[in-house]
Amino acid sequence: MSKEQQLEKSEVLQSLRWEDDALSLLDQRLLPEESIYLRLTTPEQVWEAIRELKVRGAPAIGIAAAYGVVLGVDDFAGSAQDLVAEVERHAEYLATSRPTAVNLFWALDRMKARARDLLQLGSTTTEMVKALLEEAQLIQAEDEATNRLIGEHALTLFKDGMGVLTHCNAGGLATAKYGTALAPFYLALEQGIHLKVFADETRPVLQGARLTAFELQQAGVDVTLICDNMAGHVMSKGWIQAVIVGTDRVAANGDVANKIGTYSVAVLAKAHNIPFYVACPLSTIDLSTPTGADIPIEERHPDEVSFGFGKRTAPQGVAVYNPAFDITPNHLVTAIITEKGIVTAPYDQKLKQLFNN
Amino acid sequence: MSKEQQLEKSEVLQSLRWEDDALSLLDQRLLPEESIYLRLTTPEQVWEAIRELKVRGAPAIGIAAAYGVVLGVDDFAGSAQDLVAEVERHAEYLATSRPTAVNLFWALDRMKARARDLLQLGSTTTEMVKALLEEAQLIQAEDEATNRLIGEHALTLFKDGMGVLTHCNAGGLATAKYGTALAPFYLALEQGIHLKVFADETRPVLQGARLTAFELQQAGVDVTLICDNMAGHVMSKGWIQAVIVGTDRVAANGDVANKIGTYSVAVLAKAHNIPFYVACPLSTIDLSTPTGADIPIEERHPDEVSFGFGKRTAPQGVAVYNPAFDITPNHLVTAIITEKGIVTAPYDQKLKQLFNN
Repeated sequence: MSKEQQLEKSEVLQSLRWEDDALSLLDQRLLPEESIYLRLTTPEQVWEAIRELKVRGAPAIGIAAAYGVVLGVDDFAGSAQDLVAEVERHAEYLATSRPTAVNLFWALDRMKARARDLLQLGSTTTEMVKALLEEAQLIQAEDEATNRLIGEHALTLFKDGMGVLTHCNAGGLATAKYGTALAPFYLALEQGIHLKVFADETRPVLQGARLTAFELQQAGVDVTLICDNMAGHVMSKGWIQAVIVGTDRVAANGDVANKIGTYSVAVLAKAHNIPFYVACPLSTIDLSTPTGADIPIEERHPDEVSFGFGKRTAPQGVAVYNPAFDITPNHLVTAIITEKGIVTAPYDQKLKQLFNN
Repeated sequence: MSKEQQLEKSEVLQSLRWEDDALSLLDQRLLPEESIYLRLTTPEQVWEAIRELKVRGAPAIGIAAAYGVVLGVDDFAGSAQDLVAEVERHAEYLATSRPTAVNLFWALDRMKARARDLLQLGSTTTEMVKALLEEAQLIQAEDEATNRLIGEHALTLFKDGMGVLTHCNAGGLATAKYGTALAPFYLALEQGIHLKVFADETRPVLQGARLTAFELQQAGVDVTLICDNMAGHVMSKGWIQAVIVGTDRVAANGDVANKIGTYSVAVLAKAHNIPFYVACPLSTIDLSTPTGADIPIEERHPDEVSFGFGKRTAPQGVAVYNPAFDITPNHLVTAIITEKGIVTAPYDQKLKQLFNN
C-alpha cells in the first residue's frame, strides 16, 4: 500500500515530512526495533495512521491531519467553491480519527478557515490547492520554530560537558521536529556543544527507552539509558548537572503535570542541588487551572505494569496502582522554558506576563 | 522426575521444607506465573535445583544444600566411619553447584563437622542419619527464628493502618521463612495488625513484582504493586508512613548496600519525613568494611535493561548504565533492625556493640 524507506543514520529525526507530493511518516509503532517511513498519499491512509498510533504526540497529529486534507484535494479539478466543500468534507472525516485530540481539531479548523479565506480572496482552484499545502507546511514550520526557540533558550542554561537527565519523551517524535525538552540536545549537537544525556526508561510504557533513547541515538546525541530507579544513584555520583523534562500542563501557579515519575526526579534533583527545568510552548500553560491540585490524574490499566511486555511479570490478580501522571509543585521547578523565554518563580505573576507580551 | 504440588492459597510462603522424607522446594524460576513445589529425593536433584536457580537467596541455598547431604545418606547401610566419608563426598559435590555462595559452603561445612562429631560421640549409623536430618532442620529453624526476631523488632515500629513501602525482595523466598524486610508484614498478619504494603517493582529484574508481590499476596498481606518511579508520588499523597528494605551488606559506619533504587527511595523518604528502616541479620553487617565507598558496585549486562522481557524495548546498540546495587549513606538510615534489636545512629559505635553483647 505504501512505499517504505529505511531511516538513515545520524539525522535529526522527523516524525513526518512532505516529500514528493506525499506525506512521509515514521511508523512509531515499530520503534525501536524498526524505523520505517510510510509514504501516505490519501486522507484515508492518514486517518488510519492517526487512528492506529503510527503517529502520536499532539502537535505531530495536528500536522499529519493538515497534510491529510491536502492529500484529499491535491488533484481536485472542480470549482474553487466546490474545493472548499471538499476540504470541509475531508477535515470532518479526519477529525474522527482520534476524537479527543485538541491539536487535531485546531489544525483541521485552520485548514478549513484558510480555504474559506482563499475563496473570498478570489483564488483559483490551482492557487488554492497550492496555498493549502503551504498552510500545512506553515503549521509544521511554526511548530518547528517554536521548538527551536525553546531549545535555544534552554541551551543558554547548559554548558559543554554537562550531564543532563530527562524523563519520558518530549522529543521530535511528538512534534514537527526537535521536541521541547529534547530540543536543546539537538541544538547543542549542531553547535558542537557536548552534553551527556541520561534518559530514564520511564515505566510502565517505556517512552524513554523506546522513543527518547531512539531519537537521540539516531541523531548522534551522547545518550545513556538508565532505569527510573537509577536516577538518584547517577546524581549521587556527580554525573548530572541539570534535569529537563516536558509537560502535559502547567498550572497558573507553576505546578507541573507530567509523566509519572517526574515528581520523584524533581525531589531527587533538589536533594542533590541540581536545577530542574521544564520545557514547553505557551500553549501548554493553562492559566485557567489555578494549581496542580486542579489537574485530574488519569489512572491507567494494571496490565501496563503487570503484563506490559507481552509477558506476565507480576502475580495474577495483584493490586496495582498505575497513575499516568504526577504533579511537581512549583517550588521544585527551577525554571520554565518557553518559546518566549525563561520564566522563574514567582510563577503566578510571571506566567501571566508571558501572555501579555 | 519429581512429583509436583500446587501451592495452596493464603499460606505464609516457604521456599523449601522437609516433607515425607524429601525436600519440597518451590521452583522460583516459574514465578509468578506458576507456583510449583518440586519433590527432591537425591543430592543430584538438589545440586541441579541450586545450579538452575530454582532456589535462590543465600540462606535458602545453604538450607537446601544441607538437606541435599541428608538425601545422599538417608538409606546408607554401612559403618558410621564410612558414613562420614559419604557425607564429605556429597558435601563436596553440592559445593560445586554455585561456586561463590558463602552460605552454601557454611552450611555444608556445618553438616560435615556434625557428622565427625557424631562419629566421635560413638553414634551408630542410624543415629547419625537421624541426627544429620535434625542438623539440617536446625539450620533452617535458626534462620527462621532469626527472621522472626527481626520481624518482631521491626513490628514495634509499625502501627495498625500504616502504609509501608518496600523495594526489591528481602522475603521468605530468599530465606527459610519470613525473610528480613518482609518479616514484620507476616507477623502483623498473624497478630491482626493491618499494614498496607506498597511494593516497588524493582527494575530491571523485577524482584518486587515477581517475588515480593507474589509472596505477600500468597500470604494474604494487603500489597499494592507500583513502578519504581511512583514511589515519590505515593509518598506525596500521604500513603506511606514507613519504608523498610533488606540489604546485601552494611558497612561499619552504617552505610547500606542494597538493590539499585534503594538510595532514591531513601532520599524520597527523607524529603517526605518518612522513616527509612533497614532489616538484616547480624551476619550481613560487615565491620571489616569501613564505609559504603569500600563496597564495589557490580555492573550488569545492558540486556537486562534493553531486552529484559524477551523483547527489545530500547534501540539496538544504545549505551546503558546498569548498576546492580547502590549505597544509601548512614544519614538517610533511620534505624537498622537485627535479630538482636534495633540500632540507630551513631552507627559506628552501636553496630560494634551488637557483636559484643
